Amino acid sequence: MIVAPQMARFTEPLKLQSGALLPEFEIAYETYGKLNAARSNAVLVCHALNASHHVAGTYANEPQNVGWWDNMVGPGKPLDTDRFFVIGNNYIGSCFGSTGPTSTNPATGKPWGADFPLVTVEDWVAAQARLADHLGIERFAAVMGGSLGAMQALQWALSYPARVRNSIVIAATPRLSAQNIAFNEVARQAIMTDPDFHGGHYYDKGVVPRRGLRIARMIGHITYLSDDAMMEKFGRVLRRVAPGFDFDIDFEIESYLRHQGDKFSTYFDANTYLRITKALDYYDPAALFGGDLSKAFARAQADFLVVSFTSDWRFSSARSREIVRALLDNRRVVSYLEIDAPQGHDAFLMDDPRYFGALRAYFGNIAL
Amino acid sequence: MIVAPQMARFTEPLKLQSGALLPEFEIAYETYGKLNAARSNAVLVCHALNASHHVAGTYANEPQNVGWWDNMVGPGKPLDTDRFFVIGNNYIGSCFGSTGPTSTNPATGKPWGADFPLVTVEDWVAAQARLADHLGIERFAAVMGGSLGAMQALQWALSYPARVRNSIVIAATPRLSAQNIAFNEVARQAIMTDPDFHGGHYYDKGVVPRRGLRIARMIGHITYLSDDAMMEKFGRVLRRVAPGFDFDIDFEIESYLRHQGDKFSTYFDANTYLRITKALDYYDPAALFGGDLSKAFARAQADFLVVSFTSDWRFSSARSREIVRALLDNRRVVSYLEIDAPQGHDAFLMDDPRYFGALRAYFGNIAL
Repeated sequence: MIVAPQMARFTEPLKLQSGALLPEFEIAYETYGKLNAARSNAVLVCHALNASHHVAGTYANEPQNVGWWDNMVGPGKPLDTDRFFVIGNNYIGSCFGSTGPTSTNPATGKPWGADFPLVTVEDWVAAQARLADHLGIERFAAVMGGSLGAMQALQWALSYPARVRNSIVIAATPRLSAQNIAFNEVARQAIMTDPDFHGGHYYDKGVVPRRGLRIARMIGHITYLSDDAMMEKFGRVLRRVAPGFDFDIDFEIESYLRHQGDKFSTYFDANTYLRITKALDYYDPAALFGGDLSKAFARAQADFLVVSFTSDWRFSSARSREIVRALLDNRRVVSYLEIDAPQGHDAFLMDDPRYFGALRAYFGNIAL
Repeated sequence: MIVAPQMARFTEPLKLQSGALLPEFEIAYETYGKLNAARSNAVLVCHALNASHHVAGTYANEPQNVGWWDNMVGPGKPLDTDRFFVIGNNYIGSCFGSTGPTSTNPATGKPWGADFPLVTVEDWVAAQARLADHLGIERFAAVMGGSLGAMQALQWALSYPARVRNSIVIAATPRLSAQNIAFNEVARQAIMTDPDFHGGHYYDKGVVPRRGLRIARMIGHITYLSDDAMMEKFGRVLRRVAPGFDFDIDFEIESYLRHQGDKFSTYFDANTYLRITKALDYYDPAALFGGDLSKAFARAQADFLVVSFTSDWRFSSARSREIVRALLDNRRVVSYLEIDAPQGHDAFLMDDPRYFGALRAYFGNIAL
């Protein structure tokens, strides 16, 4: 499937949750499949921290550049693009095409950098609603995402109850725990104390806070995998004949983490990383209802599919069950699936036959 | 209980596991109680990453400086110094008195710094055996420790089987998992990529890799507490009236971590941190026996008390059970206690009545 990214431009300012005004913005997106005449088959796919609007397929000139959820989305796949019109989008504040800290601030003609406002999950959804308007989609057959993407799928059902028929919430949490916030804060501190960060104004200095990004990504990877999955994948296998008694790489896991950190630090924007982690920390739909998630979900009208994975210790199954319970309190139609998978949080990206089979069945049951 | 630190000097070189020779070294230690005439009541207490030889009591001129395990050790306490002669010791390579990277290298007259050799758990035990000789103790009534200290207690039973009557192994693991190593590696990378690290030769530069130490400590604290304990202690409580939509402190947990990191970075030596994490990574008594822990424990002669805590996800109960199983394979006398405690790895420092009661009973049953 050959696809091409597109860009939608919005010149009406977006009032953000913080009170700040984003004067204008662009959203990078891709579409797969065809919108039917009734405009009833659109599915919005939301991405997590490190992904983009490039959900499926490849680019004509980059055959290696396969979309991040290509195993899930495409012709004949669980989210079947022969039947559905699927939209991948890059959220604002990201660094893969949509307006964010690396974009030009119209007020100064320079990159926004540290002056780019903090955006929230609610802001992302509001911006995506503009994209839906732009594409002529009044109501989505489904909004779907994993991890941070799942928060967007959930928030769609709360911000625009009438515009979502199904919300598919995978490897999610209704709010971050103190431990989740702690990991985010360490990553932020690693970036912000990097001497090359310059308070976020590093673009015109010809440097990037690469050390901090590297550490942030290494921490992230630990939380994406389960202890068991890491042991299974890397064990205590040495990269050299015997321990070196120095600080070069001894163990496979060290090599893996350094490689992931190095790679990430070459392409990911530090100001974006900071903002995404803050959006995660802030997300808490129950906060306005005294912490009562059931009250927060009262306005939802969608049907829900909630999926969690047994070995996910970042957003454990217990957190998904909080969502399920609060939805049932509101008599929503909820399907809940807990997959016994060893890979940890990353399991939501893996092709597990029970998981993919359930998604295929769920989408198959959505009437168009 | 007023105590005073002492110093023992050893001029015979110590052959380290790496093959390197430590030409001379000192061990800082403290003693509590009196060695009996039969010299049969000595208990060696081994510390974990951040503690020292100052196990119990206070210093005459520093009444606030209470030993790190003062709730466990003292007159009438579970490890009763009215009955036992207790020795606290600082392991070599640390930065609290014993010879380590901050000490003077006799070959250069300057601090060892990056040239201080890597030391292992086995090396620490070998150095402690010199201290035992120095104090005229042929055989310990018990060697005891938690976390990294527990590895030393375990290793004593393997390195010097005839010199340990009881090995008390608390919150331990027989070897680090890939995830354990991963956390250590991120901490090391944070320190080593700090521009103030200077390859470990920062002492004469008038700087300290404080940013890296700070991050290392923040990561450490996340792994010392359970998710639940963190949620209980900090929750999602804000430090300001409403989210600030900036990168100042929003949540209590952020304040806690920054404070812990800041404090630690003012007194802990970075070269020491690197070496301790490596000693943890390398420890694997089964490695020489094809990974068979039962074979590795065949030479042990001590009785064992193994204690773990349900909420400890750093070194989980499952890891303690590996130790217990391997000891039982060798028909050792083993008591195993799993405490249902919410605090995570840090539980081993807390005064839980069941935990402390069991320790009290165990020590009470040691014949002198």
